[in-house]
Amino acid sequence: MKYINLTEASAFKALESSPQIGSKDLLTKERIQTCSVPSARGVTYNYAAMPVTEEILKHFQALSDELQLTEKYQILLDGAVMNTGEKRLVLHHLTRGQIGKNVVVDGENKGEFYKKELSKVRTFSKEVRSKTFLLSTGKPVAHVVQIGIGGSDLGPRALYLALKDWAETEGKEHIPASFISNVDPDDPSGILSALDAEETLFILVSKSGTTLETLTNQRFVEAWLKKRNPSIDPSKHVVAVTSKSSPLAKSSEVSKSFFIDDYVGGRYSSTSAVGGVILSIAFGFEVFEGLLKGAHEADKAALHPHVKENAALLDALIGVYLRNVLHYPTTAILPYSQGLSRFPAHLQQLDMESNGKQVNRDGMPVSYPTGPIIFGEPGTNGQHSFYQLLHQGTDIVPLQFIGFSESQRKDDIDVENSTSQDKLVANLVAQIVAFALGKDDKNPNKRFEGNRPSSLLHAKRLTPEVLGTLLAHYENKVMFQGFIWNLNSFDQEGVQLGKVLATKVLQGAEGDEILQAYRNLF
Amino acid sequence: MKYINLTEASAFKALESSPQIGSKDLLTKERIQTCSVPSARGVTYNYAAMPVTEEILKHFQALSDELQLTEKYQILLDGAVMNTGEKRLVLHHLTRGQIGKNVVVDGENKGEFYKKELSKVRTFSKEVRSKTFLLSTGKPVAHVVQIGIGGSDLGPRALYLALKDWAETEGKEHIPASFISNVDPDDPSGILSALDAEETLFILVSKSGTTLETLTNQRFVEAWLKKRNPSIDPSKHVVAVTSKSSPLAKSSEVSKSFFIDDYVGGRYSSTSAVGGVILSIAFGFEVFEGLLKGAHEADKAALHPHVKENAALLDALIGVYLRNVLHYPTTAILPYSQGLSRFPAHLQQLDMESNGKQVNRDGMPVSYPTGPIIFGEPGTNGQHSFYQLLHQGTDIVPLQFIGFSESQRKDDIDVENSTSQDKLVANLVAQIVAFALGKDDKNPNKRFEGNRPSSLLHAKRLTPEVLGTLLAHYENKVMFQGFIWNLNSFDQEGVQLGKVLATKVLQGAEGDEILQAYRNLF
Repeated sequence: MKYINLTEASAFKALESSPQIGSKDLLTKERIQTCSVPSARGVTYNYAAMPVTEEILKHFQALSDELQLTEKYQILLDGAVMNTGEKRLVLHHLTRGQIGKNVVVDGENKGEFYKKELSKVRTFSKEVRSKTFLLSTGKPVAHVVQIGIGGSDLGPRALYLALKDWAETEGKEHIPASFISNVDPDDPSGILSALDAEETLFILVSKSGTTLETLTNQRFVEAWLKKRNPSIDPSKHVVAVTSKSSPLAKSSEVSKSFFIDDYVGGRYSSTSAVGGVILSIAFGFEVFEGLLKGAHEADKAALHPHVKENAALLDALIGVYLRNVLHYPTTAILPYSQGLSRFPAHLQQLDMESNGKQVNRDGMPVSYPTGPIIFGEPGTNGQHSFYQLLHQGTDIVPLQFIGFSESQRKDDIDVENSTSQDKLVANLVAQIVAFALGKDDKNPNKRFEGNRPSSLLHAKRLTPEVLGTLLAHYENKVMFQGFIWNLNSFDQEGVQLGKVLATKVLQGAEGDEILQAYRNLF
Repeated sequence: MKYINLTEASAFKALESSPQIGSKDLLTKERIQTCSVPSARGVTYNYAAMPVTEEILKHFQALSDELQLTEKYQILLDGAVMNTGEKRLVLHHLTRGQIGKNVVVDGENKGEFYKKELSKVRTFSKEVRSKTFLLSTGKPVAHVVQIGIGGSDLGPRALYLALKDWAETEGKEHIPASFISNVDPDDPSGILSALDAEETLFILVSKSGTTLETLTNQRFVEAWLKKRNPSIDPSKHVVAVTSKSSPLAKSSEVSKSFFIDDYVGGRYSSTSAVGGVILSIAFGFEVFEGLLKGAHEADKAALHPHVKENAALLDALIGVYLRNVLHYPTTAILPYSQGLSRFPAHLQQLDMESNGKQVNRDGMPVSYPTGPIIFGEPGTNGQHSFYQLLHQGTDIVPLQFIGFSESQRKDDIDVENSTSQDKLVANLVAQIVAFALGKDDKNPNKRFEGNRPSSLLHAKRLTPEVLGTLLAHYENKVMFQGFIWNLNSFDQEGVQLGKVLATKVLQGAEGDEILQAYRNLF
């Protein structure tokens, strides 16, 4: 396999010198009808409003071929050590099904390992939901709380919120879930204040079993359980999701452990037990299984070698074009669905933690921009907020819209001959066109320049399968971009220094007068 | 008053050519101790880790003087037509107290007008909280829901979340509040599903009384009320916050109206009845009054002509320096307080909708970057997410930290000789220093370049007064930046085109095959 920096690729040089054309001059009815790439489960990526011509698509294909993007994905699936910095395999795809070869590490078939853990999730969630599993004072679980941070929090939280309304509408019995993440004591204190200790189960999620915030919040929760009812045995209220070798795995403080391993990075772990335990308890195992199916199918679709047939690959290449040829530093994620309210926060982590790097996979500095800054809020709210800058600001922000034909709750109202869902979709459509085409006006203050590039991911309805597809689409997009930029998208050395210095502050920061001076402000 | 574009200011030219120095070479114990500017209520702006020398501060002062920044603020307070595009006064400061001259428009003293509306808020909220006010089936209000979007939603929502834990801890009786904003039917449907119709009061907020999303959601709510209990009179469950001239003001569909006017822009309206009704009902009028006091004092502090004595002014100037001299296109807002979880979303709107403009206050195009892209999430969550890019990405993102000495809920735990609040502050302090100083390492993957500029707003505890100060600090910062960029920060023409096109789509988009083609994807 050939690993070169992006600027060494001859196809990239060709792409750079290819004629550029704005979406204003490019957008036609025909493009909207034809610039579509299916992922899975009806999820379709439409790039009609992206400044991408047939010629540029040819350069994309050449770049993809030259950099062996789908081949690299294939060897990743087959168990190559793609997390070069930490010398680890990258196996999150395997948590939703096997596509590549059998991956055996230290005599263990990893596909079987993840299946076994998944089966433990199935069994346990069924016990909890059927009230066979009882908490320490004999009560069934009425509320479940995940204690985790970063990848153990943002993904599962976004998915939980994305499925809550769907599950309710489909008549699934729902065990409400909450999430405690921040070391700020107001976070656990606020969440716990509304709960009944005797009926609450906690899922403690930390791969290493040493995450400061999470272990602190575990103590917080234990103290709360005992305070609420001294006869509670806290260990009976806590299960762990951790690695086999972590101190939590055999701790007497937890009643049960589900295992993950070092080959599934935190931000890629939503489809492992990290997301599985809480989602299966909240909605039923079959809902989580639906999510896995959608993700698995998207993973398979991402193997297609042709850029015009591979949504994740094309999305990745367009993103690199926007970043490295057109020099746009940011991207906004704009879901037109209330269920996806926290999906941008998950994608922000996924993307910025994976590709916000300045060294390549061999640890050598790169000379070109890598991962962009990602932000977003649900439409139509954003329209009444930061869209002003997107339309008329001095900087161009590429946009990724997400939309659905149907609402999740199917509870709607007709006002002036259209439903709210109609209005939502009308707004989404209007924004894409407004951003692309703009509008001239004699008054410069009412002028819209257009040429604001956007893409659209759309599907019929936000179901578990569709959500899984969306999740995997973005994971695979980020992976392909990491390959293009020649990065290791699977480590996060950038979070280490802060941890070290925080510990130093807690120990008094002796000899470090700068840390001390800041500490003394508080 | 002199209105010139930034690049015409001689002090800006001097600033541009002033020697630059990174925070890595600048940060000392002495700077941390001395680079502090008080706003109000103990809120202090610390800029020690900003790449700002004494010489640069002199240029800031010269620029502020040349552009008459505090004088412009003074005439704004005194009732000048600062919203030039819409030919309107800008009076949001007056909603929290009078600083400037009496402002009389069409024979009405506006200070008296806002006071009268505030007094109506006081009376009504007391009636609601004392259960004197009863809903249509004779029940008191047990839940209050704001229906509004953009400025009628993000600010009040952020403030509600920021005060909830404080109010509970201080023993204030709490009437829970929710917010419906999105035209996505899943938004109202999901919120309403958990509520008791007979005990819920709605606050319909639309200045014009014509906001599509809000009126649609009003119908949604009315239908829900009737469906839940046909004997409910919906009009008795809805009060309005609107302008006197709007169709809502005298509508028989609402039982009561609180007035705002065209001189308070949506994103600046949290301290008017837009935020006042819901916050006063939820927590008590005196809590909202505390917020107003804090904001009023920050407004007064922002009049100081010396940049080293005026936190909002200095914050604004530093932001312009980062944007127009150092060319950083984004800024992250990082509150180390769970209560401020949605404060970044409010500031995103406030900043990007106010200054995301490419024409100046006279409607002429400007040739320099204006408002940056704003995003953020609470720490310590962000540390385990997008901080990777902030530390080691290829782009520099200036940072604004917010932190407090004490937690809101005062419910804490000691683990390994430190409380969670200690850990939170330690992390905050550690991050500032890690971003500024970085760390060298033989392994480039473990290297932190440093020179990531940040500022810190800190206070003792997040109380209503402190929150009001923070709110006003940012409003005034954005206002000063608008003056510096010579913008009108008080209109939002950029939101219009989308509205027009959305209406067209809803009407079938005849003759517009591009709109139709997009609509047909759904």
